[in-house]
Amino acid sequence: MSKLVVRAFAISLDGYGAGPRQSLKTPLGEGGEELHRWFFPTRTFRRMHAGGADGSTGVDDDYARRSFDNIGAWILGRNMFGPVRGPWPDEQWKGWWGEEPPYHVPAFVLTHHPRPPLEMKGGTTFHFVTGGIQDALRRAREAAGDKDVRVGGGVSTVRQYLQAGLIDEMHLVVSPTLLGGGEALLAGINLPQLGFRCAEHVGTESAQHVVLSK
Amino acid sequence: MSKLVVRAFAISLDGYGAGPRQSLKTPLGEGGEELHRWFFPTRTFRRMHAGGADGSTGVDDDYARRSFDNIGAWILGRNMFGPVRGPWPDEQWKGWWGEEPPYHVPAFVLTHHPRPPLEMKGGTTFHFVTGGIQDALRRAREAAGDKDVRVGGGVSTVRQYLQAGLIDEMHLVVSPTLLGGGEALLAGINLPQLGFRCAEHVGTESAQHVVLSK
Repeated sequence: MSKLVVRAFAISLDGYGAGPRQSLKTPLGEGGEELHRWFFPTRTFRRMHAGGADGSTGVDDDYARRSFDNIGAWILGRNMFGPVRGPWPDEQWKGWWGEEPPYHVPAFVLTHHPRPPLEMKGGTTFHFVTGGIQDALRRAREAAGDKDVRVGGGVSTVRQYLQAGLIDEMHLVVSPTLLGGGEALLAGINLPQLGFRCAEHVGTESAQHVVLSK
Repeated sequence: MSKLVVRAFAISLDGYGAGPRQSLKTPLGEGGEELHRWFFPTRTFRRMHAGGADGSTGVDDDYARRSFDNIGAWILGRNMFGPVRGPWPDEQWKGWWGEEPPYHVPAFVLTHHPRPPLEMKGGTTFHFVTGGIQDALRRAREAAGDKDVRVGGGVSTVRQYLQAGLIDEMHLVVSPTLLGGGEALLAGINLPQLGFRCAEHVGTESAQHVVLSK
């Protein structure tokens, strides 16, 4: 049964999934890179982004690897796709990830502004969805078949799917950093009321991994 | 140099230091006991409350034991002392802890209603402070001498001292539970702006310990 999942989504000790003052230079907000410090040294990350066979193995890497398991489609908020706001001025911007993005499956980008699909190397096709989160989910499920759909972020996209009661499982990574402001992932969201409980938790030298499921 | 510290203060994954709907029957709010599940099996807790010499050792117990090290006085919010609200009807209520509370030093209770000091077995004397948080701190520092003053809680008392910039160090315990509502410890408080950084973090089977210091 296909699930809608959030995986490897990092938050700070004070609950922020992105830091304050996001900009082109600091797309994760100030201090936001600290959230992902657990991920960068893993073999999974190194293989994806540095083309190497090095990188750490162990619990952090296990979670990193699992975060890509059985994913048949992604949903991304527009800011996760890029810094362009308003109508697309042209079709130059092709995402933050270069010619071969790390998705390798269809990725549905939420936007208010239509744009033709964008086929990239390695199996990723970006589809631009203007019909809202339900429409994006319907299309992503269709594309994913029996596999799961992963909501990649950002914070506001995850919150919208959570609040609509549509997320089945979340793997969060609590990173040992303080951001002081930015986008709070869980503020005002009653997870037990939505049916979630903490099903799994493991601490590593870099972070605390928790799996919340229904 | 004497510090003002918070130690062994547990919060849920969604950031609450007490659950919703606090009452005499559930003084920690619904689900609030889950926050302290890391603490109950430790040798430190067992010695304090069960009089036994059993209990777990290891990281959780190390943090539990350290939380009492070098503490010369405590500050407690009134709700942490008891469920009585408004003027004290009499002097019957002597705290949640029986004849010998686990403090063994002077403990300053914040209240709007005066009451004479209450001397208990084992060195704890409860002093009832009506002059506000600064006055309680001044008196606690005086009593503590070179030792540290520990703010025991609850959430609203810790937040008041934090917001006033008076806390020097906090050991928080992130427990793998969701409360969904209640009292959020850090909501709207900018810890980096107050000078805090994460100085220490260790995950155990029961929780994630983090030490935030200036």
